[in-house]
Amino acid sequence: MLSVKQIIQSLGSEVIQTFGDIECAYVTNINPIELVDINTLDWISNARKNKQEAAEASTAKVILCEPIVVFSKNIISQSKILIHVQNPKLALALIANKYFLSKPSPGIHSSTVIHLSAKISNSVYIGTNCSIGKCVIGENTCIFPNVTIHDNVTIGKNVIIQAGAVIGTDGLGCERNVDGSLVKFPHLGGVVIENDVEIGANCSIAKGAMSNTIIGEGCKINGLSFIAHNCILGKNVWITGSTMLSGSVTIDDNVTIYSKVIVREGLRIRKNSIIGMGSVVTKDIPAGETWFGNPAKKLIK
Amino acid sequence: MLSVKQIIQSLGSEVIQTFGDIECAYVTNINPIELVDINTLDWISNARKNKQEAAEASTAKVILCEPIVVFSKNIISQSKILIHVQNPKLALALIANKYFLSKPSPGIHSSTVIHLSAKISNSVYIGTNCSIGKCVIGENTCIFPNVTIHDNVTIGKNVIIQAGAVIGTDGLGCERNVDGSLVKFPHLGGVVIENDVEIGANCSIAKGAMSNTIIGEGCKINGLSFIAHNCILGKNVWITGSTMLSGSVTIDDNVTIYSKVIVREGLRIRKNSIIGMGSVVTKDIPAGETWFGNPAKKLIK
Amino acid sequence: MLSVKQIIQSLGSEVIQTFGDIECAYVTNINPIELVDINTLDWISNARKNKQEAAEASTAKVILCEPIVVFSKNIISQSKILIHVQNPKLALALIANKYFLSKPSPGIHSSTVIHLSAKISNSVYIGTNCSIGKCVIGENTCIFPNVTIHDNVTIGKNVIIQAGAVIGTDGLGCERNVDGSLVKFPHLGGVVIENDVEIGANCSIAKGAMSNTIIGEGCKINGLSFIAHNCILGKNVWITGSTMLSGSVTIDDNVTIYSKVIVREGLRIRKNSIIGMGSVVTKDIPAGETWFGNPAKKLIK
Repeated sequence: MLSVKQIIQSLGSEVIQTFGDIECAYVTNINPIELVDINTLDWISNARKNKQEAAEASTAKVILCEPIVVFSKNIISQSKILIHVQNPKLALALIANKYFLSKPSPGIHSSTVIHLSAKISNSVYIGTNCSIGKCVIGENTCIFPNVTIHDNVTIGKNVIIQAGAVIGTDGLGCERNVDGSLVKFPHLGGVVIENDVEIGANCSIAKGAMSNTIIGEGCKINGLSFIAHNCILGKNVWITGSTMLSGSVTIDDNVTIYSKVIVREGLRIRKNSIIGMGSVVTKDIPAGETWFGNPAKKLIK
Repeated sequence: MLSVKQIIQSLGSEVIQTFGDIECAYVTNINPIELVDINTLDWISNARKNKQEAAEASTAKVILCEPIVVFSKNIISQSKILIHVQNPKLALALIANKYFLSKPSPGIHSSTVIHLSAKISNSVYIGTNCSIGKCVIGENTCIFPNVTIHDNVTIGKNVIIQAGAVIGTDGLGCERNVDGSLVKFPHLGGVVIENDVEIGANCSIAKGAMSNTIIGEGCKINGLSFIAHNCILGKNVWITGSTMLSGSVTIDDNVTIYSKVIVREGLRIRKNSIIGMGSVVTKDIPAGETWFGNPAKKLIK
Repeated sequence: MLSVKQIIQSLGSEVIQTFGDIECAYVTNINPIELVDINTLDWISNARKNKQEAAEASTAKVILCEPIVVFSKNIISQSKILIHVQNPKLALALIANKYFLSKPSPGIHSSTVIHLSAKISNSVYIGTNCSIGKCVIGENTCIFPNVTIHDNVTIGKNVIIQAGAVIGTDGLGCERNVDGSLVKFPHLGGVVIENDVEIGANCSIAKGAMSNTIIGEGCKINGLSFIAHNCILGKNVWITGSTMLSGSVTIDDNVTIYSKVIVREGLRIRKNSIIGMGSVVTKDIPAGETWFGNPAKKLIK
C-alpha cells in the first residue's frame, strides 16, 4: 500500500499540481491497461490521443497525467485524483522502480565460479552459472545468469549486467602479414563500468588494447550490442540494442544511439546527438545533431 | 530401414505419383550429394538445373523429385524409383525430421539450476549449465546448453531453444530526465512462447513492460535475433537471423523476415508479407507485400 | 627482461635496419602511450602524424618505427635505439604475442561438462561453465567460459573460442507448407574449425545441413557474428564483428569483411576482396575488389 502523499513526495519537482482528496488515498499496484483496477496507479501516456477521455474512462482512482487533462465534473464525480506531472511515463517509471520492482536479494549462487582474487561487495547479487574473473564489483550490483566477467574489469555500484553478457573479452584488431596471415594486436587493457550502468543480454564489451574501455556513469546499453576495444562512453549514453561501436569510438554525454547502428573505428559522437536506427556512421557527429542512413547524414529539420 | 511405402504414407498429399517397383523397396540414410549411396533417400532440389540428368546420374535407388523429371528408359533400366512430389526439399525435410533426426532424450542435466517453483513437464530435455527461473515448460520441449529462462516465462510444447539464448530478460526502454539521466521503464510482464516454436542460438527475447511478449505457434527465429519488449508475433513467422524487432512490434501470421533487419518500435507487419535482408523498416507493411532497403520500400514486381 | 637482440631475431625479415647500441639493451614491458617508461618497447603507429617528434619525445629507450623516422642528433643524444621495421604495429603485435601475453594454462575447469566420447588434447584450456559435446579439440586450443560446443564439431590446434560462443548449433532453413507452417530442413552435418582460428564472444556457427560448415586456417571472426549452415571460409578471412553470413556462402582466402555486414545465401566472395561495414551483399564479389553499401556496389577508386 503506497499513499498518494508518498508518491507526490517521491516525485518532487516532477509534480505540477494535484487535484482531489489525497488525504487518505493510496494505490497498491501498477498494471497494464487491461488489468487496471481501482487500486492501480494509472497514467496517461504522452503519446496517447484523447487523454481526457482516457482519464475519465480509467477504472483507477489515482492517475498521473499531463496538465492538458482537466479535473472535470466527470472526474470529480468519480472521486478520482489527478496528479499533473511534466512527463507521466517518467513519473510512473520513477515510482515503479522505487516501490514496485523487487531486485534480487544479495548473494552469489553456488554454481557461479569466482576467481580467488576477485573483490566483490557484500551487497552484490550474482545469479547461476556465471564465470567471474579477477575483477572488482561494487555495491548493489546485479549480475544475471550465464554472464562472463573476465580479469581486469572494474564494475561500479548499482550496475545491472543482464544474462549471457560477456565483459572484458579480447579485442580482435589484426594486422595482415605479407603472406595474408593475420596477427592479432595484443589486448592488455581492461574494462571500467561506472555506477548505474545497465548492460543488456548477450552483449559483449571488449577490453582495451593498452588502456581501458570505459562505460560512463548511467549508460544503458540494450541487448546484443558489441562495444569494441578502447571505446570511451561518457555519462548517460543510451544504446537501444543490436548496435556495434568499432574500436576506439568516443561517445559524449547524453547521446542516444538507436538500434542496429554501426560506428566506424576512431570516430567521436558529441554531446546530446541522436543516431537513427540502422545507421552506418562514417564521420564524426557534432553536438546536438540527429544523423541517420547509410552512410549516415545529418537530418535537416 | 525405412520402406518406400512408409515414406509415401508419411508424405500424404505431398506425393503426386510414384514410378517403379515400390513393393519391397527401402532406404537407410539421407546424405549430402557426395556421400549418396544406393540406400540413400535422394532428392533433386527445386533450384537445380538439369534435373533429369541429376536423377539419371544419382547413385541412389529412391529419388524425390518434381514431375518434370520423367521415368525415362535410363531410369527404368537402373530399377530406380521416382517419387513425384510438390516440393522435394519440403518432402525430404518432412521424412528426415520424422525418421532420421534423433532428438535428445528427456532429462535435465545436473549442472542446470532450476527454480523450485518452475513447472516442467516430464518429457522435457534441458542441457548443461542452463539457468531456469520460475517458469512453465511444456511437453517435448528441448532446451540446449547455457540457456537462461527468467521468471514469468511460459513455454509451450515441442519448442526448441538453442544454446546461449536468453528468454525473458528486462526490456530497456528509458525516459530521459531533464538532467540527461536515464530512468528505465519498469518491466513487469513476461514472455509466452507457444507450441512448435524454435529460438536460435544466442537470441534474446525481452519480457513485456506490463503485459507479455508473445511468440506465436510455429514461429522459427534464427540465431542472434533480438525480440524486444511487448512484441506480438502471430503464427509461423520466420526470422532468418541477426534481426531486431524493437518494442511493441506486431508481426502477423506467415510473415518472413530475412536476416539483419531492424523494425521500428510499434509498427505492424501484416500477413504473408516479406522483408528483405538488411532492411530498415520505418513504416507499417500491408499484407502480402515485399519490402526491402534502407529505409524499406515496397518491391514493385 | 627481453633483449633487443632477441626482439630483432624474432622479427626476422620484418626488420629493415637498427640504430644505436643494441649490445646490452633490453625492454621489460609494453604499455599504452600514457604509461610508457624507459623500459617500454615503444612504437610509432603508422597512422601517426609527426612521427619524428613522437620518437624524439618518447620516454622509452627502444622504439619500433618506419624508416621515415631518422636517427637524429636528438635521438642519439638520448642514447635511444631505433628499430626500423616495415610495419611497426605488426612488429609490436608479433613481439607482444610472443613474449608479453600469458595464455591460460592447460586444464579443464570442473564446472565444465564434457561428453564422454569427446577427444580433447592434453594441452587444451577450457574455462568455467562450458558445455562440450562429442567433438574433437586440438592442441593448445583455448576455450573461454560459457561456451557451447555441440556434437560433430572438429576444432584444430591453437584455436581460441571466446566466451559465450556457440559452435555447431542447428541451422534453421525452413520450407513453408501450403498452410503456412514452417518445416525445418534437417541439419546432419557438422563444423570444422581449422588451426589458428579465433572466434569472438557470443558468436554462433551453425552446422551444415548435410556436409560441414568450414572455417579455414587462420580466420579471425570477431564477436556477435553468425556464420550460418554450410558456409565455407578459406584461409585468413577476417570478419571484424556483428556480421552475418547466410547459408552456403563461400569466402575465399584473405578476404576482409568489416562489421555489421550481411551476405546473401549461396554467394561467393573471392580472394583478397574487402567488404565495407554495414554492407548488404546481394551479388558475388570478384577477387581483389572493394564493395560497400546497401546494396553493396564496387568502390571505384
